[in-house]
Amino acid sequence: MKKPSRFNHHLYAVVLVGGSGTRFWPLSRWAHPKQFLKLTSSLTLFEETLKRLNGVVRPSHIYIVTNVKHERKIKQLAAGFHVSSSNVLLEPSGKNTAPAAIWAALRIAAVDPHATMVILPSDHLIKHPANFVKALGNAVDLAGRDYLVTFGIPPTRPETGYGYVKTAVRKDQGTKFFKVVRFIEKPVLAKAKQFCREKNYLWNSGMFVWKVTTFLIEAQRYLPRVYGLLNRHARGPGFRQMWAKLPSISVDCGILEKAHNVAAVDAQNIGWSDVGSWQALAEALSNDSLGNHCRGDVVTLNCAKTFVWGDHKLIAAIGLKDTVIIDTPDALLVCAKEQSQQVRRIVAHLTRSQRREV
Amino acid sequence: MKKPSRFNHHLYAVVLVGGSGTRFWPLSRWAHPKQFLKLTSSLTLFEETLKRLNGVVRPSHIYIVTNVKHERKIKQLAAGFHVSSSNVLLEPSGKNTAPAAIWAALRIAAVDPHATMVILPSDHLIKHPANFVKALGNAVDLAGRDYLVTFGIPPTRPETGYGYVKTAVRKDQGTKFFKVVRFIEKPVLAKAKQFCREKNYLWNSGMFVWKVTTFLIEAQRYLPRVYGLLNRHARGPGFRQMWAKLPSISVDCGILEKAHNVAAVDAQNIGWSDVGSWQALAEALSNDSLGNHCRGDVVTLNCAKTFVWGDHKLIAAIGLKDTVIIDTPDALLVCAKEQSQQVRRIVAHLTRSQRREV
Repeated sequence: MKKPSRFNHHLYAVVLVGGSGTRFWPLSRWAHPKQFLKLTSSLTLFEETLKRLNGVVRPSHIYIVTNVKHERKIKQLAAGFHVSSSNVLLEPSGKNTAPAAIWAALRIAAVDPHATMVILPSDHLIKHPANFVKALGNAVDLAGRDYLVTFGIPPTRPETGYGYVKTAVRKDQGTKFFKVVRFIEKPVLAKAKQFCREKNYLWNSGMFVWKVTTFLIEAQRYLPRVYGLLNRHARGPGFRQMWAKLPSISVDCGILEKAHNVAAVDAQNIGWSDVGSWQALAEALSNDSLGNHCRGDVVTLNCAKTFVWGDHKLIAAIGLKDTVIIDTPDALLVCAKEQSQQVRRIVAHLTRSQRREV
Repeated sequence: MKKPSRFNHHLYAVVLVGGSGTRFWPLSRWAHPKQFLKLTSSLTLFEETLKRLNGVVRPSHIYIVTNVKHERKIKQLAAGFHVSSSNVLLEPSGKNTAPAAIWAALRIAAVDPHATMVILPSDHLIKHPANFVKALGNAVDLAGRDYLVTFGIPPTRPETGYGYVKTAVRKDQGTKFFKVVRFIEKPVLAKAKQFCREKNYLWNSGMFVWKVTTFLIEAQRYLPRVYGLLNRHARGPGFRQMWAKLPSISVDCGILEKAHNVAAVDAQNIGWSDVGSWQALAEALSNDSLGNHCRGDVVTLNCAKTFVWGDHKLIAAIGLKDTVIIDTPDALLVCAKEQSQQVRRIVAHLTRSQRREV
């Protein structure tokens, strides 16, 4: 068991704030995506991410990469956790995770060449932060041996929306760990079912740990053009122009799938969820004895496994099962839970119609 | 086939406006019950009732009995159909239909002893007004032969919320008609199913036709105290005190169940519904090819037999079946269609909690 204090000196965190905010419509909007929702507590998911690092990573070691459109909001929330505005890296446009990770790694390496960095999406749910800190300790150990480390989650359902890693148990200096031998991005259902049955597959959570030197060597090897552009123009007048030239590519596809030194830590007990839909959120939150979860001024009668979120007015739900109700001042969603992925289609429809409700 | 003009001379109408407005919550409220809702057109159900009499009963022959709390609203709407304020009879409190019917009959008899009156609830839906006028003609004929006549509706489902009449075909002056041989108030399901199978049972619609003289004789016979009180104190200073002494009793229970001269006309083709619940309304209204009925700013996806009424904001419904959604500025109802009778329980709960949303 690791104590938080041991991380402090060379450990850095990079919080990635992206997301367009379509899955949690009508609560999330284009200008107000998922990481800014208070889904699980009185804090936004972004704030929960910073809170999780409290006592583990020094505020001055926390970097945030976000789209320039969120600048004000991010800087304001970050200040609440003593993270300085100068640690907020502003992307002129979204380019997926690889450019963001390389940019942050270069910035950190310039400050501390011996740094180890943990990359955290800002819109995930982690129910057991103490276990997360333990898993992080294990990941930092592995990273110290020049591995690119992902937090792996044993699959609990044949999810087709996630990436999987195939692992093999190896030994390094007497310690067992999971070596990643293959990446599988969003498999078909039959494959996903197979992965659930076999015990050596994990979900790739999108949370990573590595030494900045290890990572930058691999980035230079597999994404030389991206690395070169960011290394030359990470500051200064050419930045915007350079950024526009970058491809949109994920760390997974661009680097991890090709690298030979990828490992995973088992993060089963951290209570992870990427809360990718209303259904996923409903499953992640605690419910009453009938499986209902209500927020706001809600009366239910003969309801089961029903998820009701209101705010400003009375909601009465009668005789519903596996239903999601989300009421906001200008839009209402009522949705069969298992069809909550379809919310994107509604948002696409509204976007085409140029409706202000998106 | 009867022509409307033939009714004009001695035909009077009594429109009953009662109802507490619990079944159509949250659209109906204590102060705004069902008859004031625009459920089926741009007119309220009350106005639709008056419109149905247009060209059939002279405006000066139309009486309205209502609770004093609705006075302003009723007089205002009635004026739109040239019904004078002096024809609006104001009840200090609700006493069910018998006192209202006797009071109106006494008032009409004083004006025209040869009058025939038709009693119409103000919150029913009649989809085919021309057929209603024909059925009314048949009922007026029967009433001319000293029958108390009800509009009977052949049951289409084993409804346990309605009264039934058992009928026998008789002949009078060469014309066949339905003699009512028994009343059955709100039967248990097994009985209701039996009534649906046997062909000689009709729903008692609550719409009646009789000569005022016939009716007042029967009222005097079966409800002598009610008749006596109303006959002596129908106007003047003792009225309020007298009204408080009246029992709350329906025409059906107080008079029709006991009388021997009750008949029914077959009103199958008038398109009647008492729209007693959201489910009944959903069935009475026209739907799209998937059985959905939407009003307001509504987007549906993979929905069937779903009834969505909004007004002021966007509503998205996904993957729902047999569901009712009613959105109002201060309250939202989402309800399984078959449980829409339970709305009363929600209203009762809100009333106990002294919530303003009732």
